[in-house]
Amino acid sequence: MDNQQISIGTASRPKAEQWDAYPSHFEVQLRWSDNDAYGHVNNVVYYSWFDTVVNQYLVTHGVLDIQGGATIGLVVETGCNFFESVSFPGTVSVALRVAHLGKSSVRYELGVFNNLGVMAAKGHFVHVYVDALTRRPVPLPAALAQLLEQLR
Amino acid sequence: MDNQQISIGTASRPKAEQWDAYPSHFEVQLRWSDNDAYGHVNNVVYYSWFDTVVNQYLVTHGVLDIQGGATIGLVVETGCNFFESVSFPGTVSVALRVAHLGKSSVRYELGVFNNLGVMAAKGHFVHVYVDALTRRPVPLPAALAQLLEQLR
Amino acid sequence: MDNQQISIGTASRPKAEQWDAYPSHFEVQLRWSDNDAYGHVNNVVYYSWFDTVVNQYLVTHGVLDIQGGATIGLVVETGCNFFESVSFPGTVSVALRVAHLGKSSVRYELGVFNNLGVMAAKGHFVHVYVDALTRRPVPLPAALAQLLEQLR
Amino acid sequence: MDNQQISIGTASRPKAEQWDAYPSHFEVQLRWSDNDAYGHVNNVVYYSWFDTVVNQYLVTHGVLDIQGGATIGLVVETGCNFFESVSFPGTVSVALRVAHLGKSSVRYELGVFNNLGVMAAKGHFVHVYVDALTRRPVPLPAALAQLLEQLR
Repeated sequence: MDNQQISIGTASRPKAEQWDAYPSHFEVQLRWSDNDAYGHVNNVVYYSWFDTVVNQYLVTHGVLDIQGGATIGLVVETGCNFFESVSFPGTVSVALRVAHLGKSSVRYELGVFNNLGVMAAKGHFVHVYVDALTRRPVPLPAALAQLLEQLR
Repeated sequence: MDNQQISIGTASRPKAEQWDAYPSHFEVQLRWSDNDAYGHVNNVVYYSWFDTVVNQYLVTHGVLDIQGGATIGLVVETGCNFFESVSFPGTVSVALRVAHLGKSSVRYELGVFNNLGVMAAKGHFVHVYVDALTRRPVPLPAALAQLLEQLR
Repeated sequence: MDNQQISIGTASRPKAEQWDAYPSHFEVQLRWSDNDAYGHVNNVVYYSWFDTVVNQYLVTHGVLDIQGGATIGLVVETGCNFFESVSFPGTVSVALRVAHLGKSSVRYELGVFNNLGVMAAKGHFVHVYVDALTRRPVPLPAALAQLLEQLR
Repeated sequence: MDNQQISIGTASRPKAEQWDAYPSHFEVQLRWSDNDAYGHVNNVVYYSWFDTVVNQYLVTHGVLDIQGGATIGLVVETGCNFFESVSFPGTVSVALRVAHLGKSSVRYELGVFNNLGVMAAKGHFVHVYVDALTRRPVPLPAALAQLLEQLR
């Protein structure tokens, strides 16, 4: 993957957004292993940043207990569009917002910005909360829902 | 991520498909590192399988020269829906088809099937071919287009 | 990392071994992400194969319960020497033997062989078994010790 | 892998060191994927930090051109001893020193320290420099050797 500011002749392709379209931003350090054989960060790696940023946010705000929670957030959908390449060494800024809060689910949207503040990629992922034992959907825990309201 | 056969109250969620909805299938060995802290394969890992299956297909069929090709396939979009969890140790079957062949782009669709033949996840990714130097879109190389016709 | 059949002027560097120096061999599929920016499998990846081969062996032989065992095998030391590069796509053969069985510990030695049967790398790792709660060393479980005798 | 402050009854096991045994320290952010099924950072991941810290140091100091250098540093040996577990989320400090500078090779030693300043792991890796084409060992480039003297 390399510089992807190209036209692919489709009206439906998502457009890059601005930095301030997101309420929160997190600096992520690139690693040697993020670059693939083409010398740029591999498309898969962006998803590992999404996992990192969302889970770190939830843990540090006290609404995720990885080992022993009674409810579990299942990842049921993820997706990403890529606009620009980035490369190790360096950092990127991963921006986070909540686009939808359902009764049992939350849709996070994430932007990856390079050092010039240009959006390199735009992704999303959807958590559905279920009971850890029965695996039936349950309402979002109140503390979680309250926290996520601040990311809209 | 765990057993995800749940209703999330949305009509738009993609449905799992059958094994024979895909023309080609590739066995993929799971690794210890595929499991995350929840003891199941992490959502990100599915995308690394997609990368592996598509690139392996292209290299072994002689239409991808990783180091020195004059054209490059840029990954501009990926996505995945998750239906069931899988766990190391074991194998999964990753199914591959071509859903769209454009002038300069190809949309791959991939299914991940567990050992019972049940779809665990369904993803896609889109390659746009560009000139290695100018980064302008170019027509798909003829040998590539011909090969991909067999995956429709 | 690339072809490493070179002299580095040290008498102490381990020598490559032959295939039949190991009692068990396991085929490992390479992945796109195994190659790094130099186009060869990154040195770190070899250790993920070691983790995979050993844990898979223990789980499939019924002596490792990842989620709920009363004893835990802690990795206290690993190491690897690299002789030849390998590259995706393809497979390697990872060979396994038990070099030392202590009261509470086991030293595994692993060889990575390329498709020509030439050793690409030679590694080891040491597990110490401890009580899951107290973290004090415990004797190797009898079934485990019995199994590992077969790998000497 | 978990808390590893245990005796394994061997006189030869390396001992943990103090923070100030190393001239340089680099903060490394943990990622969700660093934790394995046991909920702690997997042993393999430490090596990816070593790769990251060394290569980042070389690139940012102008002595490594990943894409087009005339000489290549081959990784011929790595190793690590593990003393304490660490877990996402959080950071670790990776300490770096040069333990040996040969005519064609360099041995890096690295320490991983947790947030309490306690050593969690201690590793090393050895680079041998070769000509990019002939793969014969060459003297360390002068600028590299000069830089590395500062890490002793």
